[in-house]
Amino acid sequence: MDRRSVGVFDSGLGGLTAVRELRSILPSENIIYFGDTSRVPYGGRSSEILHHYARQDVHFLRSFDIKAILVACGTVSTTALPALQRENDLPILGVVEPACRRAAAKTRNKRVGLIATAASVHSGAYERTLHSIDPEIQVISRACPLFVPLVENGRFHRGDIVIETVAREYLEPMKDQGLDTLILGCTHYPLLTEIIADIMGSDVTLINVGQEAAWELKRTLERHGMLSDAASGETTLYASDRPDDFAQLAGRFLQQELQGTVRSVNIEQY
Amino acid sequence: MDRRSVGVFDSGLGGLTAVRELRSILPSENIIYFGDTSRVPYGGRSSEILHHYARQDVHFLRSFDIKAILVACGTVSTTALPALQRENDLPILGVVEPACRRAAAKTRNKRVGLIATAASVHSGAYERTLHSIDPEIQVISRACPLFVPLVENGRFHRGDIVIETVAREYLEPMKDQGLDTLILGCTHYPLLTEIIADIMGSDVTLINVGQEAAWELKRTLERHGMLSDAASGETTLYASDRPDDFAQLAGRFLQQELQGTVRSVNIEQY
Repeated sequence: MDRRSVGVFDSGLGGLTAVRELRSILPSENIIYFGDTSRVPYGGRSSEILHHYARQDVHFLRSFDIKAILVACGTVSTTALPALQRENDLPILGVVEPACRRAAAKTRNKRVGLIATAASVHSGAYERTLHSIDPEIQVISRACPLFVPLVENGRFHRGDIVIETVAREYLEPMKDQGLDTLILGCTHYPLLTEIIADIMGSDVTLINVGQEAAWELKRTLERHGMLSDAASGETTLYASDRPDDFAQLAGRFLQQELQGTVRSVNIEQY
Repeated sequence: MDRRSVGVFDSGLGGLTAVRELRSILPSENIIYFGDTSRVPYGGRSSEILHHYARQDVHFLRSFDIKAILVACGTVSTTALPALQRENDLPILGVVEPACRRAAAKTRNKRVGLIATAASVHSGAYERTLHSIDPEIQVISRACPLFVPLVENGRFHRGDIVIETVAREYLEPMKDQGLDTLILGCTHYPLLTEIIADIMGSDVTLINVGQEAAWELKRTLERHGMLSDAASGETTLYASDRPDDFAQLAGRFLQQELQGTVRSVNIEQY
């Protein structure tokens, strides 16, 4: 039994969809969340810059007494995760491997799609992981650079011609390639589930990477005897810029009203 | 006569539309341009963070032997410019004042519109400047947070339903308020001139802030006896992340093919 907190970070708000899953799967855990709103978005940046930012994010979370870290950022998970794991002596989980295991288990025709940020797609991390599980799986991937700014501007509702047009442009060529499983490789994308399902059809299984990572974190904590025995856990939120705006939007990602405030942190100091 | 370079900076690529104007108005000047691509976009960030980033940007440009700085970023011009001017002993120009003087000279019905990033609109800088020139001018302003990501993803062409829908949503309520002059308060927006003109109609004068700032820089250099007497000047580009991608997109903003390479800089060191 271990009542220390779990650390979670993302470039901004998106990782809160993973926190939502954690709250439901691991209600006894305390969570410390950091959103790097002074440098969001991460999705178009280089591997060098992403390593630098991710190390600072981890360093900040480790200024608390934490027992494990969930990297709730698809972009960092696909680029800097091995370095973070090598350099730190606590469990650090990303979103790629759990999602790939679920996708490999779900696909029947071995044609798996991936939508993610440009950095995630270019990293090749999902392909490598899927092929290490099953070399026969074909991966059809597509960078969707406008999804994050559109979601962050509230454009994720059915009937909005802007998000529907962009989503069709990204997804219809993928659908034509006959995939039966699609990994939503960015924690912003669960807010687009309805739009994506409308285009892909009910035969395509959608994989929520934050949800899979939350289950993986549960298994990891169990394995290490690190589950909390508290009656219920708390979530504490930090942001590196505009904490009040972060608080205002957080409810949309958590799908519940935010309890408490969002605290400010100067991430360049870490 | 002064052959030292002029420094220009922006959060990313947008400021290159001002460089295009500078090249045409001041062909003899050497220009050193910095785009902070490791932290773009600036438009949604807080005043505190913007001051910190802007000071680093100026510090980097001053590591060269420069004679003046043009802040080709609407967001920094509306928030951190007075601090930068106070702290530095060389001419530093922003885009707000020249654009406001032109708008005040152009408007006949004293109803001036402003479109810009959220940070620029919330700063109130354009209103204050316009009112200091003519207290009777009414300012109708609107933040357009999706314009920068849409332009950076190449969506600025007539007939693209995505940019046209977003632009109509932002601009039609402004048009209904009867303005006759519209300030395009972000250096990305000149790429949207056709789309914006289609919606606003030919009776509304559009003000290109980069162009007005380039003319103002020329007057400033003249006043200080600082104009270059060289036969022709060069442009040197720096970016804080992904210099190769920056180089690839630069031609779109400069409206001519890029000469030379884009150099990399670690901006956090400044």
